[in-house]
Amino acid sequence: MNEKGLSYELAVEKPWEHGDSLLAINPAAEVPVLKDENGALIADAQAICEYLEETYEDVKLLPEHPNARAEVRRLIAWFDRKFQTEVTDNLVDEKVIKRLSRTGTPNTAAIRAGHHNIHYHLDYISYLTERRNWLAGDELTYADLAAAAQISAVDYLGDVPWEQHPSAKVWYSRIKSRPSFRPLLADNLPGMPAPSHYADLDF
Amino acid sequence: MNEKGLSYELAVEKPWEHGDSLLAINPAAEVPVLKDENGALIADAQAICEYLEETYEDVKLLPEHPNARAEVRRLIAWFDRKFQTEVTDNLVDEKVIKRLSRTGTPNTAAIRAGHHNIHYHLDYISYLTERRNWLAGDELTYADLAAAAQISAVDYLGDVPWEQHPSAKVWYSRIKSRPSFRPLLADNLPGMPAPSHYADLDF
Repeated sequence: MNEKGLSYELAVEKPWEHGDSLLAINPAAEVPVLKDENGALIADAQAICEYLEETYEDVKLLPEHPNARAEVRRLIAWFDRKFQTEVTDNLVDEKVIKRLSRTGTPNTAAIRAGHHNIHYHLDYISYLTERRNWLAGDELTYADLAAAAQISAVDYLGDVPWEQHPSAKVWYSRIKSRPSFRPLLADNLPGMPAPSHYADLDF
Repeated sequence: MNEKGLSYELAVEKPWEHGDSLLAINPAAEVPVLKDENGALIADAQAICEYLEETYEDVKLLPEHPNARAEVRRLIAWFDRKFQTEVTDNLVDEKVIKRLSRTGTPNTAAIRAGHHNIHYHLDYISYLTERRNWLAGDELTYADLAAAAQISAVDYLGDVPWEQHPSAKVWYSRIKSRPSFRPLLADNLPGMPAPSHYADLDF
């Protein structure tokens, strides 16, 4: 929404509590949910992206051509599902969500798997950005934002091995320096401060 | 593609083999992948649906209004991810994929979870179709096809408790009787024939 120049207010929901307030706006009890200025409720991250693209057209985050749009959507699925399952669930869920939701202690085998898998994904980001200006092509798209959302959550834990993946690091430093991204880097989890490199543009 | 009146040829890929032929067309090593008449490769089920909608416009499977489109996409995510994780992975992966890929014996706790979870999803299908003509509104959309894809895989195992969910059964009987769906019901897994009710319109 920052990229599109849209103003908004954020509201905290804790999906693991499956509270009535979240269920009332999304029966899947998942975040994010967008409440539009007209009161319309849009659930699911990808549905929200497509909705914003169709309703706020001043800034485009999907390219024009159907094949180029398909490439963006393939990469959204890659990061929203594959990276999420192979990396984020293993690191962020184990280290953060389990603590916040008090549902057990971190599974060390999962954390090991997350640390192992992230190399493969950073290699893929490097591969793509050595051939393209942004992940899906010439322009910044939702693919970059989907990737950056996953990466930043893991980077908050200090678990991104940047030094071994310099091309991926260049891509992420370009993301971090965008005005849209700066306020997100100022977010802090209560009782779990970000490491010093997290918001640093020269990390 | 049958709904859109498009002709195609099917090619078998076994994603668990992570074969070079599949990796060459989708680095995520997942099915489905669409190869267009122009040779374009489109990976990821939802990206394929959006691509077909943008390139073959004679038959629409997404409604016009952005809010209605968001509702379809919310439900695609519901079935492609939530139903897949909570039901299909627990039943089809355990009973079929493990056998075909020879990667172990079925996990009885997972199968029990699948049998438990499917009631909640059939209740949701009933809830929606008691209020709407199809899952997402007045017209058949990709939401119905996403749901039917999951349901039919579980129904092949005889694991859908239809008698306890009559409204969901009415919806699925309308899906089964569509000309687009009939050929799919004739599919058979080698060595694992479908139960008699599977292709029966009066099940």
